[in-house]
Amino acid sequence: MVLVASRNPLNIGGAARAMSNFGFLRLRVVNPHDVAFREARSAVGASQVLENAEEFKSVAEAVADCTLVVGTTAVGTRELLHPVRRLEAAAPLIRKRLASTNVALLFGSEKVGLTNENLSHCHWLLRIPTREAHRSVNLGQAVAICMYELARGSKAATRSPEKQPPATSAGLERLAALLLDVLHNSEYLHSHSAALSQEKLRRLVRRLHLSDRDAEIWLGLFRQIDWKLRSGRDS
Amino acid sequence: MVLVASRNPLNIGGAARAMSNFGFLRLRVVNPHDVAFREARSAVGASQVLENAEEFKSVAEAVADCTLVVGTTAVGTRELLHPVRRLEAAAPLIRKRLASTNVALLFGSEKVGLTNENLSHCHWLLRIPTREAHRSVNLGQAVAICMYELARGSKAATRSPEKQPPATSAGLERLAALLLDVLHNSEYLHSHSAALSQEKLRRLVRRLHLSDRDAEIWLGLFRQIDWKLRSGRDS
Repeated sequence: MVLVASRNPLNIGGAARAMSNFGFLRLRVVNPHDVAFREARSAVGASQVLENAEEFKSVAEAVADCTLVVGTTAVGTRELLHPVRRLEAAAPLIRKRLASTNVALLFGSEKVGLTNENLSHCHWLLRIPTREAHRSVNLGQAVAICMYELARGSKAATRSPEKQPPATSAGLERLAALLLDVLHNSEYLHSHSAALSQEKLRRLVRRLHLSDRDAEIWLGLFRQIDWKLRSGRDS
Repeated sequence: MVLVASRNPLNIGGAARAMSNFGFLRLRVVNPHDVAFREARSAVGASQVLENAEEFKSVAEAVADCTLVVGTTAVGTRELLHPVRRLEAAAPLIRKRLASTNVALLFGSEKVGLTNENLSHCHWLLRIPTREAHRSVNLGQAVAICMYELARGSKAATRSPEKQPPATSAGLERLAALLLDVLHNSEYLHSHSAALSQEKLRRLVRRLHLSDRDAEIWLGLFRQIDWKLRSGRDS
């Protein structure tokens, strides 16, 4: 990643942090505002990425060993002479190239973005698809979004949340039967018998989609309630 | 979007800006650090989103009208009792629900994230897939990435209304509170107090994934049970 003429140390630090989050560890800076760069570098918790950042005098030098140079833009601010791709369409192209060679992703300064000179080094541009009414994305956030999208497809193996094994029909049936007792003992069924038959109760319990473990918890709750209801009646 | 106990005005401002970029305009804050919130609000260029932010005293109030509450986490910091989905898998589920009802996306404070009490209001959690070695994402950047991903597929998102409208958080909270009374009155909590705290109960109820209609039915059942338990005790 190449930051061109960034002036805000918080943004430089933020960019480095986001790169580190998503495993992009090579940061290059072109003509950073000296104070800003030193401040960002010396900040508490400055990442390894920032410490290892390389400094260049020109975009040409910074991208010299790259086979693909992609600029970032909010578009709309001036006539663009490059093809512009939305980030989600750009990312697969960048990833593909990254597999075998170096790719540079250029971010301009907070105020003016990339200049025409900067853009002339680019093969094409990408933009983060924002709404028309509010296009300007904060630099640190723009970097974070790009790094996220680039890393997004890298691990096709998405680990789905560990699901609890579902309750068995037998477990649900026990729960429904117990609930029926509870409702008898609480005189609910006495007054609502028409409204809530045994079958309705069974469907009601099925719709809970309980895990086996949760079914056990509910059974325990209702056993205690039932016991209490019965002991209250007998006393 | 709901920010809980945020302390850094730059992060609050950054979150609001990213929301605006991607067209998510409703920000709610729970117990913000007063100075930080006022500073962020009065900052030059503070967005409409920030100006219209609503303030709440508790997570319960902030999510009351939402049918899905999703927490954000870096995982790994503690044992999690909720299913955790990667952002790219979570986004379609959130978008689908957003088409018809309110969804809350919870972000915790910079230092400690979401507390267990905060998490107990959540149906499930999402995490931004970072590399193991550097998991902690800056709050403003995390919000930006989530907003980007939620907006990412929005055009492709197809509206397929669910069979039954889901229960609101306020409805589930009422049910959990009533259940707590029932368990007190049945002396379950007396003997199991360590095993089943209020937060566990809240999570147990969330896991039922009740429809609005079924939540009403269960409320009716438990009201009758509670009435019976109390009348038995008094006799």
